[in-house]
Amino acid sequence: MHQTFDAALGINLLHANQAGADHNRAHFDQWGITCLNVMSSPGSGKTVLLERTLAALRNQLKIAVIEGDMTTELDADRLRQYDVPVIAINTGRSCHLDSKMVAGGIHTLEHQYNPSDFDLVLVENVGNLVCPAEFEVGEHAKVALLSITEGEDKPLKYPVMFQEADCLLITKLDLAPYLDVDISRIEANVRQMNPNAQIIPVSAKTGEGLDLWLDWVRLQVAMKSQLSEGTVATDTDVMMSY
Amino acid sequence: MHQTFDAALGINLLHANQAGADHNRAHFDQWGITCLNVMSSPGSGKTVLLERTLAALRNQLKIAVIEGDMTTELDADRLRQYDVPVIAINTGRSCHLDSKMVAGGIHTLEHQYNPSDFDLVLVENVGNLVCPAEFEVGEHAKVALLSITEGEDKPLKYPVMFQEADCLLITKLDLAPYLDVDISRIEANVRQMNPNAQIIPVSAKTGEGLDLWLDWVRLQVAMKSQLSEGTVATDTDVMMSY
Repeated sequence: MHQTFDAALGINLLHANQAGADHNRAHFDQWGITCLNVMSSPGSGKTVLLERTLAALRNQLKIAVIEGDMTTELDADRLRQYDVPVIAINTGRSCHLDSKMVAGGIHTLEHQYNPSDFDLVLVENVGNLVCPAEFEVGEHAKVALLSITEGEDKPLKYPVMFQEADCLLITKLDLAPYLDVDISRIEANVRQMNPNAQIIPVSAKTGEGLDLWLDWVRLQVAMKSQLSEGTVATDTDVMMSY
Repeated sequence: MHQTFDAALGINLLHANQAGADHNRAHFDQWGITCLNVMSSPGSGKTVLLERTLAALRNQLKIAVIEGDMTTELDADRLRQYDVPVIAINTGRSCHLDSKMVAGGIHTLEHQYNPSDFDLVLVENVGNLVCPAEFEVGEHAKVALLSITEGEDKPLKYPVMFQEADCLLITKLDLAPYLDVDISRIEANVRQMNPNAQIIPVSAKTGEGLDLWLDWVRLQVAMKSQLSEGTVATDTDVMMSY
């Protein structure tokens, strides 16, 4: 377990993180930005999904990326080729982004750009199916990816991520013919953990399912712009209107 | 980062974990047991590797498994079919096994079996490419798996695991024809992080490479039984004699 109580400071670290996340979200709301927190195991296809997303949406929406990696800017450099601001955060030995790290990214966005110009901030988290699920960063929705190469049982074995996800992408569909995998069983296992998540099977390689994903993203942004107060609809509202 | 200093107790948690790991290792040494800590992302193939290992070695070596999972005994049940003791540890919300949890497993081994009968304890860690690498559990060697579906760049992006590994299995070789992946580049990236690790490409499906892996395991056990004091050879000694 993460050590979540710091006796020296007398604070619960998860509570402190939550307060920071609420603060970040208030900034996004003030600027009319929708923020999505994209999470998964290493190598489930987060970066290629964001590449496809930027290619498809960058002319319709003003997008920035906050890119979390332990070390390197390899992913950030891939996404910079799509001509959008990519703010790289190296977490060092940390296994997840927290709200303070993302606040640093927001600070950069605020001072190097006009944040009110932006519609969408995509946060790519550190590859980890456990810890990022516990640390909100100020997002309006959590997106989790599960590659079909990872096995049908993962939603049962790593329940927190699947309980927290608003949208669950089942990725690498194109590999299905070469695996002993039953995708309907993955879906059933996700449902067992989370009856409300939007489940979208996709292949970044063939493009299958990406239209549904892009529709879901556009819907998150459209809902936000319709909310005069900048407050956020509940997941249930989202799913009902979808 | 994991919170590693507990001010209330006045101890560094990683140091406390290390002391527990040393204690566990002393037990293993006393009983002539070799302990391997098997780690990777979720779905890289740890459990199927252990299935193949038990099937091949259970008649040559006396083996027990300590099986870590956040929830469920799905993996433990798979391994129990090989008729070896499988001690399941549910970590709850924790993202890794620590030495205290494994001490609980050792306690079970000690009281339900005759531990001196055993040659090998395989610890399957929680699926996570980040955190388990920092928490020793009393193992004599660390084994890390990286599936070729996870991408060539992972050793650079998750350096700690690859720096810590004594043996690095590149898994799911059978999927190579269907992926845009250069396995020699994965090897080069591992080497950049760790010049000394034994690198073994394998496919649990076709059996390719498994003989080398089984040889490596047998070598770890053989080395231990040759050491009269029960102390452990360095990695360099292992690699030189290999």
